[in-house]
Amino acid sequence: MRSVYFVSDQTGVTAETMGHSLLTQFADSDIKTTTIPFISNAETAQVARAQIEAQARKDGTRPIIFSTILDDEVREILLGIDAVFLDFFSAFLTPIEVELGVKGSKAVGRAHGMSDTASYTARINATNFAMANDDGANTKDYENADVILVGVSRSGKTPTCLYMALQYGVYAANYPLTDDDLDSSRLPQALRPYYHKLAGLTIDPKRLMEIRHERRPNSRYASENQVEYECRQAEMIFSRNGIVHFDTTTCSIEEIGSRILQNLKLDRRVHP
Amino acid sequence: MRSVYFVSDQTGVTAETMGHSLLTQFADSDIKTTTIPFISNAETAQVARAQIEAQARKDGTRPIIFSTILDDEVREILLGIDAVFLDFFSAFLTPIEVELGVKGSKAVGRAHGMSDTASYTARINATNFAMANDDGANTKDYENADVILVGVSRSGKTPTCLYMALQYGVYAANYPLTDDDLDSSRLPQALRPYYHKLAGLTIDPKRLMEIRHERRPNSRYASENQVEYECRQAEMIFSRNGIVHFDTTTCSIEEIGSRILQNLKLDRRVHP
Repeated sequence: MRSVYFVSDQTGVTAETMGHSLLTQFADSDIKTTTIPFISNAETAQVARAQIEAQARKDGTRPIIFSTILDDEVREILLGIDAVFLDFFSAFLTPIEVELGVKGSKAVGRAHGMSDTASYTARINATNFAMANDDGANTKDYENADVILVGVSRSGKTPTCLYMALQYGVYAANYPLTDDDLDSSRLPQALRPYYHKLAGLTIDPKRLMEIRHERRPNSRYASENQVEYECRQAEMIFSRNGIVHFDTTTCSIEEIGSRILQNLKLDRRVHP
Repeated sequence: MRSVYFVSDQTGVTAETMGHSLLTQFADSDIKTTTIPFISNAETAQVARAQIEAQARKDGTRPIIFSTILDDEVREILLGIDAVFLDFFSAFLTPIEVELGVKGSKAVGRAHGMSDTASYTARINATNFAMANDDGANTKDYENADVILVGVSRSGKTPTCLYMALQYGVYAANYPLTDDDLDSSRLPQALRPYYHKLAGLTIDPKRLMEIRHERRPNSRYASENQVEYECRQAEMIFSRNGIVHFDTTTCSIEEIGSRILQNLKLDRRVHP
């Protein structure tokens, strides 16, 4: 049993992302992760230290700490723990300072604080756009879309649109292929003017059956025949009309969003 | 002018997150960032190298490269560039290997690939829940909510719910305070049984005016009187009823989500 901590003076998102990337390399180890966010002064640092040390005594192993703490006083307190201390800023800040010839501003929490109102607004607007253009009810705004995701029910359209909105500020609409669309095997009328911004999502019928079954057990909607028919027709529509499409079966939401962004050469409205 | 690259064998999300955190320390430098994802073999690595070197010649400065590349052959190619090469895995993988006494599996792309179907399903289900319980139209599912965000229109409820769903798999509903709710200054009937899972969102009236003005210019909805009244009444409802509330004025979506999670001691359904 090994305890791993993501300690941050802010939300912990950076520490979690980096730690998660590394820990996937050790899938066979028995690891328990804990995020300790908002450690921004000596007092909260002492509480965190006590918590980590108490758990380490229970575990009988040294904890691993991913830190994105900037403040020297806070960091000193955490460095007092008998642990593997992986210090994000020590590792990377100095080489950048040397290259740019300036010191980092050491402003705590600017990474995921609202340093940039414009980018916040862009993300909110993109999220509202995704919500208003979900599930094909509204096709009037397609003109303003950066991308329109097309696919059968539960192929991953909605979460991908929302992720692209929140992560990249991209305006993503989605259009679910209806029974009529699938029967005709032609590109739906509403989509034809926007050919260049369409992205198809496909999915393995077995996986789609599982997903639909969880939602509506033993329904026609989740049946093998229905699901196979829909997947086949959707792929045919994409292939016949030359629509770029993405298999979502073994992809995370991040991966689908990132592939679409790259493939359609979409501009981000949110820049790091 | 300085070009910064986030190079990854996968989506680039980790490289971007880590690079972004560091670059906020150098807000005054003239930096242009580019993500180059899916560099998974020698061929794509050579293309990326050529792209980076061409830009460096234009810039007349050494590029900075944040890399989350695992493959040695690919990494060697990128290391041939005259650049500041910040290698995420070299920096942190070895200390973890030493501590755990095992070698990392070097499985490319498991960080944001779908290594875990259960966590994918949890995120999708949470997203669907947030969509179905947005804007107070449906209050029947409140029983299944982990948290219910309460606030006036445009205080940030919807994006925060969606972020918490995608990032943490948390079931977050949201309830917009109506005119009737605000006039009565009592806790709305629909919310009373769920007192322990309510989180109020507040916002500075000036900022809210800006946000609403962008949406409906010169409307009563965006007017100073209306906005100040709504903000005042909402805060009164939260205070009088002892509802924990969060000021979203200068917070990013990540920060609001993370604070709510911590404050209400919510369990994540998605673990790194």
